[in-house]
Amino acid sequence: MRAGIIRFALAQPPARNGRAHRGARASIATSAIINNIWNMPQNWENMGKKIVIVGSGAAGMTAASLARETDREAEVTVFTEEEHIAYSPCAIPFVLEGKIKDFPSIVMHDPEFYRRERNITVRTATTVSSVDGDKKALTLANGETVAYDALILATGGRVFVPPVEGADLPGVFRVRNIADGIEIQNAMKNAKRAVVAGAGVIGLEMAVALKRAGLDVTVVEMFSQVIPRICDDDMARMVQSYCEEIGIKFMLGTPLGAIKGDGKVSSVMAGLTELPCDMVIMATGVRANLDLPNMLGLDISPLGAVRVSATMQPYKRGRLVPSVFLAGDVVSCESAAAPGPTMSQLGSTAVRQGRVAGINAAGGYATFPAVLSPWISQVGDMQVAGAGMSKGLAAYYGIEVVEGRASGLTRARYYPGGKPLIVKLIADRESHRIIGAQMAGGEELNGRINWASSAILKDVTAEEFVTSFENAYCPSTSMVKDVVNKAAEDLVKRWKD
Amino acid sequence: MRAGIIRFALAQPPARNGRAHRGARASIATSAIINNIWNMPQNWENMGKKIVIVGSGAAGMTAASLARETDREAEVTVFTEEEHIAYSPCAIPFVLEGKIKDFPSIVMHDPEFYRRERNITVRTATTVSSVDGDKKALTLANGETVAYDALILATGGRVFVPPVEGADLPGVFRVRNIADGIEIQNAMKNAKRAVVAGAGVIGLEMAVALKRAGLDVTVVEMFSQVIPRICDDDMARMVQSYCEEIGIKFMLGTPLGAIKGDGKVSSVMAGLTELPCDMVIMATGVRANLDLPNMLGLDISPLGAVRVSATMQPYKRGRLVPSVFLAGDVVSCESAAAPGPTMSQLGSTAVRQGRVAGINAAGGYATFPAVLSPWISQVGDMQVAGAGMSKGLAAYYGIEVVEGRASGLTRARYYPGGKPLIVKLIADRESHRIIGAQMAGGEELNGRINWASSAILKDVTAEEFVTSFENAYCPSTSMVKDVVNKAAEDLVKRWKD
Repeated sequence: MRAGIIRFALAQPPARNGRAHRGARASIATSAIINNIWNMPQNWENMGKKIVIVGSGAAGMTAASLARETDREAEVTVFTEEEHIAYSPCAIPFVLEGKIKDFPSIVMHDPEFYRRERNITVRTATTVSSVDGDKKALTLANGETVAYDALILATGGRVFVPPVEGADLPGVFRVRNIADGIEIQNAMKNAKRAVVAGAGVIGLEMAVALKRAGLDVTVVEMFSQVIPRICDDDMARMVQSYCEEIGIKFMLGTPLGAIKGDGKVSSVMAGLTELPCDMVIMATGVRANLDLPNMLGLDISPLGAVRVSATMQPYKRGRLVPSVFLAGDVVSCESAAAPGPTMSQLGSTAVRQGRVAGINAAGGYATFPAVLSPWISQVGDMQVAGAGMSKGLAAYYGIEVVEGRASGLTRARYYPGGKPLIVKLIADRESHRIIGAQMAGGEELNGRINWASSAILKDVTAEEFVTSFENAYCPSTSMVKDVVNKAAEDLVKRWKD
Repeated sequence: MRAGIIRFALAQPPARNGRAHRGARASIATSAIINNIWNMPQNWENMGKKIVIVGSGAAGMTAASLARETDREAEVTVFTEEEHIAYSPCAIPFVLEGKIKDFPSIVMHDPEFYRRERNITVRTATTVSSVDGDKKALTLANGETVAYDALILATGGRVFVPPVEGADLPGVFRVRNIADGIEIQNAMKNAKRAVVAGAGVIGLEMAVALKRAGLDVTVVEMFSQVIPRICDDDMARMVQSYCEEIGIKFMLGTPLGAIKGDGKVSSVMAGLTELPCDMVIMATGVRANLDLPNMLGLDISPLGAVRVSATMQPYKRGRLVPSVFLAGDVVSCESAAAPGPTMSQLGSTAVRQGRVAGINAAGGYATFPAVLSPWISQVGDMQVAGAGMSKGLAAYYGIEVVEGRASGLTRARYYPGGKPLIVKLIADRESHRIIGAQMAGGEELNGRINWASSAILKDVTAEEFVTSFENAYCPSTSMVKDVVNKAAEDLVKRWKD
């Protein structure tokens, strides 16, 4: 089948997404005449607008590519402290779990690729130590000064480490980049017991990875449930049960205390309990990295990230800063689910923001809308996903909600390989609008959460979902009435209670 | 994991979808007092509105269940010619392919279940030979007369067999019900060569089933592509290539001629070619079964099915018939994609229509909206799906379109098990609204086609899809930018060409 599809793909005109430049280069390679004409009037190294990007994650590399696509003559340069670029940190737990072969395989492209295919310069292992917004220049750690016409800050976030004693001991790890991943991989070889601090999706994915590698794993979480805030307690309990079945232990509602050890971690205080361990994973949340934004004096939102306009431009004392753009974990943006700002902290949001920042930095025009931030996580064999408001978030905003629930399978009951699927929909009691969705199941949640997310985005009521949101059906791919539809039917009935 | 989820499900309040009655019975069983009160004032057998349903497919059985749920005192009776009820005919090819164990396993419930759990009488192997709308009565083949207060016709469709010589020879099969399936299964045991007439989704699914059972298979199709009308030629070629790779032969643009044989099929004329064969599968489309509707004098739509209102009621010389309801393959309904009526002929549509017919027949109120009819088919290891308008249908309606395409994988490139995925979106050139979607790939198409379908339903433009239709992301479940989003980005670029 692969062969069939690939053959077809080749017979099609090439996809144009992000390949305008590559297409141009291909023409150059095949035609000396065009090559000469192309090169004559310009010299890419010295002409054109100077677009400088700091950060090489999903936001930074997407911004660089879109800047190049928007302005073929600009000089596009990316600075990054990292050695590896263009990879998804979301993949790290799955490399450690052994699902993905190794770290090199998650790196999509190297700097040479960007040089050759997109005429983008990427300077790795290079720290930007300061920025001067008046002079429009960066200073690198080696003292070098780099001028810019447009600056894109995609500096991401840093793991928030609670202020506990011993947090800097060897054996305490973060999960932000490949260097972290390699350190953890090495430490796992000799470790027997691990503590994961934080039961968010990264914490749970890491707990599964460590458990499947044979370690004894305890997750310590300050909140009284796993996946707090974005996931409701009922769904969370299900995920926790699954993790417990595969042998992961939990201490919920328990603050992380001192980390003890003589030159290396030997135990962690979880409340009043001392947990002996060889390694600690800090999955305690991410805060925006504000070093450079603060040097520029950019306005910070109440969430502690840079406030940006729909064009991904920051403000300084309330006024738009024209030559600076931001994208990714460093910014907060408007929520489509709740009043006020939100932080997505998702790779999928970072690429969308990077696209807008890159286009605008290069003189094009694009806007970034309010976000719902649909999310999905693979916790061992279980997928869990959500979009829009959780019950808890709705309560915080004073919204009275109605909840509908259904369970079923991902395929017809009699079709082999089907997995359990539980769907919960949350609606505003007054308007009947669907404002949140959560799901857990064994497979095929991605399209389903996107589908539910579109209903939230488009202000669809529970009743409209039941009557108009048809599901496709084939015994191998869903029940005749999909579980999402069943949850909507249940939701409609709740008003009659 | 299964255990974890099921345990959770049991800890929840019971789902209410379609179980109001079952809940009531459970209370009866546990409380003699309530039982006595419950039974005193009524006798289900002789009191209440008489609701009669003809047909026991997805539409008929759903209508019966919803009628019961809406009116707990009604007398609900289903008549069906079939012996088996409550199964999805869509499953038949997969039983024959060996994916699903056997025919009994696709039957969800037997008549005794409906009697016991829902107080619905199902009379199998019973033919309704006539209906009198003035007297509000049916006559059965055995002469018995059955009065009704409300009648639901869910008589489905019949395979359209082209008027060719020999179409009634032994060895020529239809694929409508389990009886057909069992006949085909028996015939396959001794057959070596099969011809499938019709390359729609049922034809292709049957071709795969026969091929995988070791038969030599040729598909003969009058149109010049597989899956005509609902699928565009480019997507269709891909599906055909896959089928050819697994050894299925095609004769496209070729009319089916005479079927020859001496007491049993021995060959089929496909155009001027004689194809020797032991069996022929007629997958040549379905026409509404209008026997009873015609006796009632109901208005028929230009598509040859019963025209119904949003309440699933028919018309007679333009006036609504109050006591009759219809659902499933016997009706046409409004299209949400194109002007005028459409026939879904989908199980997923039948259950939705059955719900509305059942509620309304029992005195409740529900409406059935215009449909997009998202569809999905499993052709061997390939899934193919669509929603809204195909390029061909748009041309028929004089709509100028713009097409966007993207290919990728169902998971991150480096995550094992990912399958190819190709997505095509079709937009109205003038309004930029997305009006159609088609996909082919190895897994996880169901949620994705529902997602794209919601964009068509809600009048979303290509630009809005790119900016606002966020996708959830996890390396095991999608690329960081889903292929559907990539197709939308490609679509937006096409206006710049």
